[in-house]
Amino acid sequence: MAIMDYERLVADIPDYPEPGVIFKDITPLLADNQAFTAAIDDIANHFMKAGITKVVGAEARGFLIGAPVAYKLGAGFVPARKPGKLPREVYSEQYSLEYGNDALEIHKDALCPGDRVLIADDLVATAGTAVASAKLIEKCGAELVGFAFLMELSFLNPRDVIGEFFDQEIYTLVQVG
Amino acid sequence: MAIMDYERLVADIPDYPEPGVIFKDITPLLADNQAFTAAIDDIANHFMKAGITKVVGAEARGFLIGAPVAYKLGAGFVPARKPGKLPREVYSEQYSLEYGNDALEIHKDALCPGDRVLIADDLVATAGTAVASAKLIEKCGAELVGFAFLMELSFLNPRDVIGEFFDQEIYTLVQVG
Repeated sequence: MAIMDYERLVADIPDYPEPGVIFKDITPLLADNQAFTAAIDDIANHFMKAGITKVVGAEARGFLIGAPVAYKLGAGFVPARKPGKLPREVYSEQYSLEYGNDALEIHKDALCPGDRVLIADDLVATAGTAVASAKLIEKCGAELVGFAFLMELSFLNPRDVIGEFFDQEIYTLVQVG
Repeated sequence: MAIMDYERLVADIPDYPEPGVIFKDITPLLADNQAFTAAIDDIANHFMKAGITKVVGAEARGFLIGAPVAYKLGAGFVPARKPGKLPREVYSEQYSLEYGNDALEIHKDALCPGDRVLIADDLVATAGTAVASAKLIEKCGAELVGFAFLMELSFLNPRDVIGEFFDQEIYTLVQVG
């Protein structure tokens, strides 16, 4: 469990990007060197013995957590990107956002059957990104080991949404609501 | 200097995203755990004694290098983002891309006068992103210490472009000629 009080470093931005949505701004946490170090360590240490070979993070904020977690784990990092951003052959998955629709893509050769994969992101809310990322990992034939998030908006029931498709562990540092 | 042969892990994609442009795809390097670890270590070790307090990375690929370099340095990470992505008050800088125009924004309170800042990105080409990031750091009143890139497209003369505005060190792991 996390000892550091990460939540005080997350700014609530009401009505952003749309009316009625409270945006969770994690930039103060990223900028605080002690909190940033502790958050990456917390996640990486939790999965240190899980034999993770690759970390997948979704564009763009998933890169901020996934890349340093991959580094700490001694794993490779694989970006799941918005359509048209990856230049080679991709698998694609559509998903619903809290506010709108989008899709994620992954290079077809980014993962292979021997890979053990952790999905890392800053925030899980309606879990659309997480489920799409996990489905992309399955399409590559790799093994999904778990999900790691800085922050979980429990009132949106992301664990139920993920649980409809995947039973792997979900590890979060801060639960809201 | 880099000992690892990073360049063999960068895929050349001709005519992407536009005819005549050769896109440098660094995803194979990121996915190779040994090369990814070595690249982050190379950059961070080079600046380890420079007293870096914050690393700035530009959306989106700058996050992939900047966040783990910040983690390794024990520094905070500050994202420079595309317009409309940061929810609080921002400084903004326009710049020209190799193919098009864009702008970068940074939260006004992201950096302060005591900060010593490293800019990190995957690639420097026409240096528009690097110069815009550096100008944003100046607007915050922080001290720019240097620039670090995985890859430098020397034939586009990014050092000359940066040198018109800034004389800080530019450290790159791979120069393409």
